[in-house]
Amino acid sequence: MVPALRWADAPEGPAVVLLDQTALPHVERELVCRDVPALVDAIRRLAVRGAPLLGVSGAYGVALAAARGGTAGDVEKAADALAHARPTAVNLARGVALALDAYHQGGAGAALDAAHALAAEDAAACDAIAAYGLSLVPAGARVLTHCNTGELVTMGVGTAFGIILAAHRAGRLGRLWVDETRPLLQGARLTTYEAGRNGIPHALLADGAAASLFAAGEVDLVIVGADRIAADGGTANKVGTYGLAVLAHHHGVPFVVAAPSTTIDLDTHSGSRIIVEQREAAEVTTVHGTPTAPEGTAAYNPAFDVTPPQLISALVSERGIAQPVNSEQVARLARRDDDEAP
Amino acid sequence: MVPALRWADAPEGPAVVLLDQTALPHVERELVCRDVPALVDAIRRLAVRGAPLLGVSGAYGVALAAARGGTAGDVEKAADALAHARPTAVNLARGVALALDAYHQGGAGAALDAAHALAAEDAAACDAIAAYGLSLVPAGARVLTHCNTGELVTMGVGTAFGIILAAHRAGRLGRLWVDETRPLLQGARLTTYEAGRNGIPHALLADGAAASLFAAGEVDLVIVGADRIAADGGTANKVGTYGLAVLAHHHGVPFVVAAPSTTIDLDTHSGSRIIVEQREAAEVTTVHGTPTAPEGTAAYNPAFDVTPPQLISALVSERGIAQPVNSEQVARLARRDDDEAP
Repeated sequence: MVPALRWADAPEGPAVVLLDQTALPHVERELVCRDVPALVDAIRRLAVRGAPLLGVSGAYGVALAAARGGTAGDVEKAADALAHARPTAVNLARGVALALDAYHQGGAGAALDAAHALAAEDAAACDAIAAYGLSLVPAGARVLTHCNTGELVTMGVGTAFGIILAAHRAGRLGRLWVDETRPLLQGARLTTYEAGRNGIPHALLADGAAASLFAAGEVDLVIVGADRIAADGGTANKVGTYGLAVLAHHHGVPFVVAAPSTTIDLDTHSGSRIIVEQREAAEVTTVHGTPTAPEGTAAYNPAFDVTPPQLISALVSERGIAQPVNSEQVARLARRDDDEAP
Repeated sequence: MVPALRWADAPEGPAVVLLDQTALPHVERELVCRDVPALVDAIRRLAVRGAPLLGVSGAYGVALAAARGGTAGDVEKAADALAHARPTAVNLARGVALALDAYHQGGAGAALDAAHALAAEDAAACDAIAAYGLSLVPAGARVLTHCNTGELVTMGVGTAFGIILAAHRAGRLGRLWVDETRPLLQGARLTTYEAGRNGIPHALLADGAAASLFAAGEVDLVIVGADRIAADGGTANKVGTYGLAVLAHHHGVPFVVAAPSTTIDLDTHSGSRIIVEQREAAEVTTVHGTPTAPEGTAAYNPAFDVTPPQLISALVSERGIAQPVNSEQVARLARRDDDEAP
């Protein structure tokens, strides 16, 4: 597969090269971003998406601004535009801040090194999440997932999808149920694509059909990713996640969130304080550009919803598993080794 | 509006004329069915749909077969094909049986009279449902509905939608939230169309976004229709309904089912025994004919799901309200006046 994101140091100048996710699964098309406005536009249009990959994109974006020369003010302005391209994933602003710090300390080369390091860290985090998460998957598990959380949204095997892939490789996965994930159909377009490429037995369903699968006893485990995790464990993720958590709770099915520790935002005390991005009505009132509703129909279109910690059975990060999910356990996962230093 | 269904006695022969619901909301196109195979095909393709209207369609279908002449055997064969065109709505087989009985007793004219009588009964039932249901709608209610239950699926103002319209006309409706209702988007295509035509303030949402509306306290009442109601009150309705019932229960929001008493099937003891129609994968893997998933993707595509009586706050029919919903109350609504006779 074309990587979801790579840095290109071409003779015609540096670039961040993205796999355009709006064209998948039918076309694998690269999108070459030679400047920050192009990258910001790609982030807004969801050509690149997913909390972990947004963090890496933000860091490379700062490296790109720095590599193009210009003043420190230009780089700071670019960093600001990147950090605010989308509001919900904390990783984006974090990746930007990390590379900007490096730039201030060591210039363009240091910013690029910081981006490369973040990318490598993210890939390693995926492997660790998969290894920890595997312990939560029972033999023959029929797993339900929502949205898309694999190679397309990380620099590695993915978060929730990484666990699912590890379970498949360990012979422990019975079947993967894929929510199509309206309005943007990331499940239909992207998760089926990743499942198919990896030989994972899977079936697609309309989001509204998940409830009947629970009722029929056909779901053993739900695993999803996260866009931002508050200090209490409240988790913002793709809209539709919270409804699945309520269904899992009602049917006594474990509900697991998988995300790198960079997704945890201790400055947001509770999930209810997370700012949820509202997107345009056209995403709901059209599909593939064809209107599904009468012209001018108003729509309610939040990109995310928030699941309270009481409905989350376990939170898997590269630093281990929080179970039960509470402030103490979340703080433990969020603590960086260097936080221990005086 | 062009009526959803009408009988035409044209010089070129009788016909059942449908408003082709697959073309809405963008095109109002009539579909003229001059024989039963054409009508069966229209029922299968959902050009005509909704439990009450399917009942009326079945009756007119028998009248059409009878009016075209042929032997009693031909009419019985046509009746059988109509009754089995779709499996879940009990109304369809009932409408067919009613007209076939009339045909056996009085020939083609009697069959047509029976169909006309059923159509008139259905319109009257809608009015009664709306009147009873209105008592369950609090002032300023923000009502969530699923699928499509108005003039397009009945011979009158509708079932769930009839109550919503009555609430709007009584100044009691704050807002209507419309689930788009994947895979076939009846909410997006049809309920918004009916809401718009009636001046009802409404907004469309992806089915997965409903949970966040409940969490935000933005839903005061859920009202849906029904395709078949078992003796215990268990209700089959458009897939996605059961998930809404679980969400309503979790958030303490009343969940109301509205349907004519012909939707009650006392021969099916419990909702779990209702046969749910499984439809083809392409409804999920494509939208407007454009694929949304990689070629060959398998899909889970039940047309309906079943909500147990414990999650239904009230059942509204033209004979009154069952509240709580239990076998005794359901039997009371199902009993016809002539059942009382010796």
